[in-house]
Amino acid sequence: MDADKHVVIIGGGFGGIEAARAFKRAPVRLTMIDRRNHHLFQPLLYQVATGELNPADIASPIRRILRHQRNASVILGEASSIDARQKIVHLLDGEVAYDYLIVATGATHSYFGHDEWLEPAPGLKTLENAVEIRRRVLVAYEAAEREIDQQEIANWMTFVIIGGGPTGVEMAGALADLSRRVLERDFRRIDPSKARIVLIEAGPKLLPAMAPESSANAARQLERLGVEIVTDSPVTAIDDRGVTHGGIRLESRTVIWAAGVAASPLGKSIAATTNAKLDRAGRVIVNQDLSVPGADDVFVIGDLASINSDGKPVPGLSPAAIQEGRHTAKNVARSIRGEPTLPFHYRDKGTLATIGKAAAVADIAGLHLSGLVAWLMWLFVHILFLIGFRNRFIVIVEWAWTYLSHDRGARLITGDVEPLLERGEKIENRDRMLSK
Amino acid sequence: MDADKHVVIIGGGFGGIEAARAFKRAPVRLTMIDRRNHHLFQPLLYQVATGELNPADIASPIRRILRHQRNASVILGEASSIDARQKIVHLLDGEVAYDYLIVATGATHSYFGHDEWLEPAPGLKTLENAVEIRRRVLVAYEAAEREIDQQEIANWMTFVIIGGGPTGVEMAGALADLSRRVLERDFRRIDPSKARIVLIEAGPKLLPAMAPESSANAARQLERLGVEIVTDSPVTAIDDRGVTHGGIRLESRTVIWAAGVAASPLGKSIAATTNAKLDRAGRVIVNQDLSVPGADDVFVIGDLASINSDGKPVPGLSPAAIQEGRHTAKNVARSIRGEPTLPFHYRDKGTLATIGKAAAVADIAGLHLSGLVAWLMWLFVHILFLIGFRNRFIVIVEWAWTYLSHDRGARLITGDVEPLLERGEKIENRDRMLSK
Repeated sequence: MDADKHVVIIGGGFGGIEAARAFKRAPVRLTMIDRRNHHLFQPLLYQVATGELNPADIASPIRRILRHQRNASVILGEASSIDARQKIVHLLDGEVAYDYLIVATGATHSYFGHDEWLEPAPGLKTLENAVEIRRRVLVAYEAAEREIDQQEIANWMTFVIIGGGPTGVEMAGALADLSRRVLERDFRRIDPSKARIVLIEAGPKLLPAMAPESSANAARQLERLGVEIVTDSPVTAIDDRGVTHGGIRLESRTVIWAAGVAASPLGKSIAATTNAKLDRAGRVIVNQDLSVPGADDVFVIGDLASINSDGKPVPGLSPAAIQEGRHTAKNVARSIRGEPTLPFHYRDKGTLATIGKAAAVADIAGLHLSGLVAWLMWLFVHILFLIGFRNRFIVIVEWAWTYLSHDRGARLITGDVEPLLERGEKIENRDRMLSK
Repeated sequence: MDADKHVVIIGGGFGGIEAARAFKRAPVRLTMIDRRNHHLFQPLLYQVATGELNPADIASPIRRILRHQRNASVILGEASSIDARQKIVHLLDGEVAYDYLIVATGATHSYFGHDEWLEPAPGLKTLENAVEIRRRVLVAYEAAEREIDQQEIANWMTFVIIGGGPTGVEMAGALADLSRRVLERDFRRIDPSKARIVLIEAGPKLLPAMAPESSANAARQLERLGVEIVTDSPVTAIDDRGVTHGGIRLESRTVIWAAGVAASPLGKSIAATTNAKLDRAGRVIVNQDLSVPGADDVFVIGDLASINSDGKPVPGLSPAAIQEGRHTAKNVARSIRGEPTLPFHYRDKGTLATIGKAAAVADIAGLHLSGLVAWLMWLFVHILFLIGFRNRFIVIVEWAWTYLSHDRGARLITGDVEPLLERGEKIENRDRMLSK
């Protein structure tokens, strides 16, 4: 057994997990390294951020996913660099040698050089991000309920989402649902259904990767939910009191960043010890078999890989990462057997984005669906996708509950709540009660 | 309606929520103040700390509980002091005047003057505490899996719980379940079932408030789960490498505090502006009707109140807080109508503590039950208790899953994971794979 090749996978996202599973019966030793102990179902993060699902509903411990795979072990640790010449992965607190390396560390936010926007406008990539956004959204309603100044109330009740891609669209729809349907009867002085939800996109249309019909449908459905959509309006400033976009100042106490992504910084260290080049987004431009130029024992998959398939760039979506993971496991097995590797071909299975309850858009096999049909498709795909998770059942229960009851279970503010208001005020002096 | 008396309740725990609900049809204006937005089902916190339940399963937004009670409004804010002469509650960021005040702010940890123990030995009072303990427990197994030094592995796999009351007993049982049954197949180098779980009690027996038979039964059942029990052994030192108790040094990287509680600091400010005295634990010694000596419009209930009923001290348990809440709402209503208030009588409905899966002890109506019967009783009571929570159904689903599958859904490590090990080591040099 000691002669088994050592395959190291960095990153337990969709690509990394799928690759690990595909090695199940292969004669290799497998080590999965991740800085989190859980695989995250990122496409549903926005539902955690709006209190619809619990963090644990969309996360599954990597150890549990691989517990029956005896050739796999899991290391909780953060890879800091890769030395493709020495064939070593350096961790913050150790190092791991490999025979084959699969790098699947994905992407993170990019604030386009404005790192000072991170604090006032958190993004949505991790569970911690989602819980923090949930906290800010819920605290905003609490603060509005306690305010007396009408302008301040309006500022607390204005939510701005920057970026009209799938995350921005889904987040805007879920926030609209939250304010219009869920919180409706919870407050006494404010009317949450009057909250302003503003979705700002720098380019000319929402969901730029989808068909024009779907973009237009998404905009229509969001507007029906009361979301204000602003296009062609790049954001030029963000602080904790609001946003400047297209020369206009918009006051808001809650801003969410859904605009830019940047590839994982491991791309740079791959380029440093191989012949690989990075594209503008920092992704590694890989060979057609997903290996790295100059290091045929290193493969890059998922959002960190830049590759064309049949003349078109492969999109940064989970189905692409899953297909790449499976393909790479096959290529590594072929390479171990001395067979040539095969080029990767992406099979486009369509694109979906959901817009609040019972509304969505879908581009599938040349069709552009919207409304309830697209939403049912979204629901079906996501339930199917929660593969191998015990979470599947719980998520269905939670969704069914949310759908039937207009209620959300996970509306928790955790972390200490700092003083909400800026001055001491006599709360009882306001006629706060029985306003309805 | 403006002539309605303004009743202010501080604290949305068992006592405060029950009092608020009891005012449902009373001609009062009600304001509930809490520094959290959720009511917490504290008796199940240990299940969050061991990954069995999600935070949201045992917490319910206070606004949701009171959403249909039109005479009630909710303020998210922290009461910093009470002025019983001016009849004002001071918040960190505001103030609220009252006609009647019910203080139900409970208790927090006490480290008996050793505040430096807070960092190495967190207690279990809030959701944040529970998530932090869960993080430490799960990280300890991850670190042990990566360690090479046998002594360090042993230190990571030693878990110390200080305090043999219900929280300590339940936590020890749940940790034993976690290591013996849940994590069993997840690791490759370590065997989680070999983890040491040490429960240290300063006094002569576990569960000192229960009958001697029940204490002995609890000890027997814990020992069957492999928990080491140490009694008569006060802890004299705690740091991040271990504990000193009864002169013995015990190395451990994970210490949990379940020993002392201290009453909420609001007790002091009540004493400052009334004739009330505090007992040794800082609780307010109240009149027989739960009002405060020298301020018949201020009532103290729950863990912050010190009161005897039928010659015996009322224990700091949720049923007592609930009974006191209901009684106080009645007394306030009587006082508004000009009727005299009534003295409080505690109805002891028994005491229960659970010890891992399918084991528990119960003192009920003079009976001392243990094992499966007591556990089924515990289960029944807790399901009944999750009153008005949508959580009830989800919790049952989670429990059923955990019970049938020996799995736990909420095994998440959140927050950044710092380097686990203290030196860089070549992980692949250890024969870490295929050890089984």
